[in-house]
Amino acid sequence: MPQDHIVRSFDQELVALKRSIIQMGGLAESQLESAMQCIVRRDVQLAGKVVQADERLDACETEVDAGAVRLLALRQPMATDLREVVAALKIAADLERIGDYSANLAKRAIALAQVPAVRPVNAIPRMGRLAQELIKEVLDAYSDLDLERALAAWRRDEELDDLYNSLFRETLTYMMEDPRNITPCTHILFIAKNIERVGDHATNIAETIHFLVAGQPIARTRPKGDTSSFTVVSPESSQET
Amino acid sequence: MPQDHIVRSFDQELVALKRSIIQMGGLAESQLESAMQCIVRRDVQLAGKVVQADERLDACETEVDAGAVRLLALRQPMATDLREVVAALKIAADLERIGDYSANLAKRAIALAQVPAVRPVNAIPRMGRLAQELIKEVLDAYSDLDLERALAAWRRDEELDDLYNSLFRETLTYMMEDPRNITPCTHILFIAKNIERVGDHATNIAETIHFLVAGQPIARTRPKGDTSSFTVVSPESSQET
Repeated sequence: MPQDHIVRSFDQELVALKRSIIQMGGLAESQLESAMQCIVRRDVQLAGKVVQADERLDACETEVDAGAVRLLALRQPMATDLREVVAALKIAADLERIGDYSANLAKRAIALAQVPAVRPVNAIPRMGRLAQELIKEVLDAYSDLDLERALAAWRRDEELDDLYNSLFRETLTYMMEDPRNITPCTHILFIAKNIERVGDHATNIAETIHFLVAGQPIARTRPKGDTSSFTVVSPESSQET
Repeated sequence: MPQDHIVRSFDQELVALKRSIIQMGGLAESQLESAMQCIVRRDVQLAGKVVQADERLDACETEVDAGAVRLLALRQPMATDLREVVAALKIAADLERIGDYSANLAKRAIALAQVPAVRPVNAIPRMGRLAQELIKEVLDAYSDLDLERALAAWRRDEELDDLYNSLFRETLTYMMEDPRNITPCTHILFIAKNIERVGDHATNIAETIHFLVAGQPIARTRPKGDTSSFTVVSPESSQET
């Protein structure tokens, strides 16, 4: 009987690993949601908490890594089981990065709260909601091993890229109208970029689910929708509008 | 004799996996170097090539992943050998991201080449050189399993954060002086951020080397030096200077 506490079956360990990922996913979701609230409500106190809580996600990743390596070493899994372990390693890394982006969003909320609100910030919640939906979709897809659902989220990331591109242009125009907009708008640009990156990590997770369920990497290259790297807005054109 | 082509020893496969990583590292280094040249020389043609060549790094990562999973499945490595395989997976992911950042730098070089040069761009090559040094150091450290060298690079990433923070402030001030600076300066801000992120991936690789050589995750949290998320520059203070 006491052995029960020490020797768990391989299946139990694999279930525990998956549960750790799902818990980590819940934590990443909640960090992102809080970070979005910090921005919308200009809530500096909550922002401080989000920044602090990021450590928990880092610790989760270290724990998942250790669990996965232990499983590989002691159980030497094959085929699907092996893919489960490798997928856990990859998804933990993505969730940890989503946590980093959430902490960065919270830091920028602190900076934004020090300056008057500017209009482009209104487009942020929509981006945030979409990113949160994408994460929720891929985590549910992971939980149910639902490839179709994962692929639907993978495709929807393009919407987020589109929102980002239009926000990028609008924000640049706004900066040109009044130099006092420059500091808040710069933070908004980075906030939008961070949210867009969260979406990229959601697509990474969708791709890992493909590898897990279908047994091979996804074939098609995801349409890359962020064209803002090429954007040029001139003060003249912005004054015309 | 023909079997030689099919059945390789475990050691040979591990050596091949490590060689793939080192080659991938060389490719990532060269992509970053080319991307920096695109920015400095306003070379749009080279930038197009860098963007295209990023596919090769993506393919390398897929190949390393497949090799690692095959090794895990067929050879069931233990202890150091197992850590070698897990480290390969992690380092390949970091190198792939460094490739993404290089491609993004090249895209921004294309946008920058369309507008007049602005002063803050002069600080970019210094950041680029430091990031290239950090990558070179961690790749050499990986090749020689030299923990000290990896940790030295890990510590030096703070210098890159410092360069980034001062460039961030300078660029914001510059944007406030003249709205025509806003588009190029925005790209410079993202360029600087991308280079700073490349440094973060170099520190990730250093941490993986620690896990590989010392057998456990690094204990201390790396000093986080990017404080730009909190930066507020007002047009009044910028006009005083």
